[in-house]
Amino acid sequence: MSTTKNPASGTSEAEASWQEKTLEPTLRKMPERMEQFTTTSLYPIKRLYTPSDLDGIDFDEDVNFPGQFPYTRGIHATGHRGRLWTMRQFAGFGSAFDTNKRFKYLLAHGQTGLSTAFDLPTLMGLDADSPLSEGEVGKCGVAVSSLADMEALFDGIPLEEVTTSMTINAPASMILAMYFVVAEKQGASWRKISGTLQNDILKEFIAQKEWIYPPRPSMQLVIDSFKFCTDEVPRWNFVSVSGYHIREAGSTAIQELAFTLRDGIEYVQWGIDAGMDVDAFAPRISFFFNAHNDFFEEIAKYRAARRIWARVMRDRFGARDPRSWQLRFHTQTAGVTLTAQQPYNNVARVAIQALAGVLGGTQSLHTNSLDETLALPSEHAATIALRTQQIIAHETGVTNTVDPLAGSYFVEKLTSEMEAGALEYIRKIDEMGGMVEAIDRGYPQKEIHEAAYEFQRAMERGEKLVVGVNAYTEVSDESVQPPMLVIDNQTAELQIQRLADLRATRDSDGVARALDLLAAGAAEGRNTMPLLIDCVRAYCTLGEMCDALKAVYGEYQEPDF
Amino acid sequence: MSTTKNPASGTSEAEASWQEKTLEPTLRKMPERMEQFTTTSLYPIKRLYTPSDLDGIDFDEDVNFPGQFPYTRGIHATGHRGRLWTMRQFAGFGSAFDTNKRFKYLLAHGQTGLSTAFDLPTLMGLDADSPLSEGEVGKCGVAVSSLADMEALFDGIPLEEVTTSMTINAPASMILAMYFVVAEKQGASWRKISGTLQNDILKEFIAQKEWIYPPRPSMQLVIDSFKFCTDEVPRWNFVSVSGYHIREAGSTAIQELAFTLRDGIEYVQWGIDAGMDVDAFAPRISFFFNAHNDFFEEIAKYRAARRIWARVMRDRFGARDPRSWQLRFHTQTAGVTLTAQQPYNNVARVAIQALAGVLGGTQSLHTNSLDETLALPSEHAATIALRTQQIIAHETGVTNTVDPLAGSYFVEKLTSEMEAGALEYIRKIDEMGGMVEAIDRGYPQKEIHEAAYEFQRAMERGEKLVVGVNAYTEVSDESVQPPMLVIDNQTAELQIQRLADLRATRDSDGVARALDLLAAGAAEGRNTMPLLIDCVRAYCTLGEMCDALKAVYGEYQEPDF
Repeated sequence: MSTTKNPASGTSEAEASWQEKTLEPTLRKMPERMEQFTTTSLYPIKRLYTPSDLDGIDFDEDVNFPGQFPYTRGIHATGHRGRLWTMRQFAGFGSAFDTNKRFKYLLAHGQTGLSTAFDLPTLMGLDADSPLSEGEVGKCGVAVSSLADMEALFDGIPLEEVTTSMTINAPASMILAMYFVVAEKQGASWRKISGTLQNDILKEFIAQKEWIYPPRPSMQLVIDSFKFCTDEVPRWNFVSVSGYHIREAGSTAIQELAFTLRDGIEYVQWGIDAGMDVDAFAPRISFFFNAHNDFFEEIAKYRAARRIWARVMRDRFGARDPRSWQLRFHTQTAGVTLTAQQPYNNVARVAIQALAGVLGGTQSLHTNSLDETLALPSEHAATIALRTQQIIAHETGVTNTVDPLAGSYFVEKLTSEMEAGALEYIRKIDEMGGMVEAIDRGYPQKEIHEAAYEFQRAMERGEKLVVGVNAYTEVSDESVQPPMLVIDNQTAELQIQRLADLRATRDSDGVARALDLLAAGAAEGRNTMPLLIDCVRAYCTLGEMCDALKAVYGEYQEPDF
Repeated sequence: MSTTKNPASGTSEAEASWQEKTLEPTLRKMPERMEQFTTTSLYPIKRLYTPSDLDGIDFDEDVNFPGQFPYTRGIHATGHRGRLWTMRQFAGFGSAFDTNKRFKYLLAHGQTGLSTAFDLPTLMGLDADSPLSEGEVGKCGVAVSSLADMEALFDGIPLEEVTTSMTINAPASMILAMYFVVAEKQGASWRKISGTLQNDILKEFIAQKEWIYPPRPSMQLVIDSFKFCTDEVPRWNFVSVSGYHIREAGSTAIQELAFTLRDGIEYVQWGIDAGMDVDAFAPRISFFFNAHNDFFEEIAKYRAARRIWARVMRDRFGARDPRSWQLRFHTQTAGVTLTAQQPYNNVARVAIQALAGVLGGTQSLHTNSLDETLALPSEHAATIALRTQQIIAHETGVTNTVDPLAGSYFVEKLTSEMEAGALEYIRKIDEMGGMVEAIDRGYPQKEIHEAAYEFQRAMERGEKLVVGVNAYTEVSDESVQPPMLVIDNQTAELQIQRLADLRATRDSDGVARALDLLAAGAAEGRNTMPLLIDCVRAYCTLGEMCDALKAVYGEYQEPDF
């Protein structure tokens, strides 16, 4: 089938001759700086990749053209020539009013999609006036306790015209219900609105640890939202299967790839088991990966992710719609790589990480602000981060051609190695019975913990250097610090007051009735989404909805592994 | 000779099928963003590169292993695994005392080589107390008018232990003589000191316009320094053939490549014509390229440069020493790409440009400071620039393997296209009789001017966007400006006073005698270097030495082209 193409050769005899005549004299004269060179994930990298590294990689089967199975070169035939990635900066702080203002600022500065960060109480399904929320309201994201907050958050933003991403998981269905009701009140059609809900509860158990219910009822909530959206909100991406937090917790790139894709497999399997047609819902599953420091490892990771997913969907699940085979993903640069020391160095880190995401073919991108380790992003820092994306898009020329690294001996080989490493993990988890069962055993949790520990040791041994942390640590420019965004406690007071007003003025009977119906429906195994939407319309609070389901589902306690 | 290696295929039939079944429906649904996609140099880039783009590229002949002819993959078998590039930040401002302090600061912060920027009077061969120097003393570099300044500049810096780069051209021999005398006074052996002198007068006529004498005597001065160093200072790199300024003047990448290498050919030819053995001096010729915005065009440029130079040296000049074939180069990120608007965006630009230089296999690198369009680099900005290099070296993993992009359909094809484009220019200049003759005709000057004009028009038409300049121009963060380094006029006053003291206290007869011997020797065609060294020892000033030679060589007046 294959036609011979140059550059070929680089035969083993030629390589042996090079080793003897060129390499060995060089090594004798000047030994290499390290005994072994590894990626940020401590994955070993060879000195040299040559045509012989392409043995066993078949262009047609493994690489192919962009827009063609297995999509190694991207899901679109025209890559970023057709459409740039969506520049989607995660934003949220203080009250819904504060964040609404930031959203409008970002849209006015060229951002092309919204992305909502919620505060910790909201992420945990708590109202702002819960005693457990104290000190955290509006601190790391926006506080949303009811439909009233959601209305303020999107005030003046036409939901049919923007795409909105919402990073929330355990109470994802409740927040989604609020968004849909805001759209309804704007007169926007549910069939026309689009956006992405993170809604990835598996990675909470694996890495992020923001859970409410045990894994199985949590999965049921997710599947309910899949079904509802498939029927009623067809352009909504109802899950963003997220490697980001797995990586931030210290996993390797291969673990990020493997656990994320295996989570995706778990969602698809549960959807099929719940009676859904795979091609009816799989095209709306999207992914969310980290863009970490190691430039080529990251690019190979994205390329491998597309190839694995295409094969899984076609061969394991029998999906027939090419859109089910196509892995689409959002990327965020790696928060853990930012340093509080010499914070402006982070602009350089973020630029190179973002470039890897773009060269890997991302569909959307968040570039971290230089000050994210110190505080919430200031406007100054958030603008530099967005401008970094615009510079990559318009000045670097990397969008001129699709998948520019294809064919590289190193990148193709590393892509295949990442794929093989991830498939091995996926096989092990299959053998355990699936991801829920693997989580029960603490398997992915322990693997990540071990990887994080190994990296820490490599840093302590000086084998991995972080500029400003364990190398070049003098801070020469202490006077030059970025301006800071500080959230004062007034935000919490106002939020609590607004909530008190709401509780005082809403129809309490309607609230109680809606919550009763929710609990009863959940207990009977009915789809929770319509019930949640009715609760939202009645201005039930987030905490009330979450509590109603706790009575049915119980709460998760992590075992000792 | 070649063994078939995968990935092969991607046959023309397969490509035709892809076009019909995948590409065309995509284009109908979503046209591309532009009719034609081009690099920063307006060079057209195809939508897709496939194995068929490797037709006509032979691995053994054209790519090969690193450290092997034609060195496309680098001149060292171990790339940056053996030794990182030299992090060489160009620095110089105010008096020699000021710059000496900055040098010591940079060495203490991990910089591994010094690089000296001279002020405009020094670059033009003028003393600080010349009326023509007014307002420019110490402004854009350090003021050096005599040996006394050079002694202050390197006070406390052991010249046998550092490598020093000096960016100076028309009066390069005079400055070099000063450096050698400082070394002599330190007790450092001329046989052990090493560094690089720019000494590239051809690009002054082509682009930078800082000339003194006409082209032919200017070339004679250069060849004198080649000969002297070859005999007396064997580790000195006596010319850094510079594309940097050609590119900054607005050339395309191919023009930068072509004119720079053709300048190199001119120097080699003059050296041979002066009776030197090519292998005795060619290994000490180095190059200096720009790292501009277009990521892959730059990488391809560096790879093409090595391949062209290796073939030129072996096949055109019959050099037999592999060191004569190996193109070594310094890189500086592109000053012209920095914007005064939103200056912190420059950190992102510089990071990506620097990454291209590193992936292209540079031997040394200057990363621009974010504030270089506004002022001289402050310590704050210079530190971020240096840290950017350290982040690339230690955090991104790109040094793990040699020439990671080899084999990429796009990068290999673009490398070959850059080579072909440059060879076409070289052929034309050969037909004109050489670079001096081409300069006489204004040929490279006009080609660059036209390229700069075309880019300007593309910007005006909105086909090329520069973030903060003709796109995303709102300055949201006017309050956040980097701290500025300001050179006050006291520097000039002190410099003039020091020079007056020197003129009053030195042996005037000795000065006059040395200058007479210099003029007489130059008129007779003797090597000027030993004569200049004697002038320096007598504390003749830079201006006095330059003037003595003006009487012999005349001064250059650029004709109207």
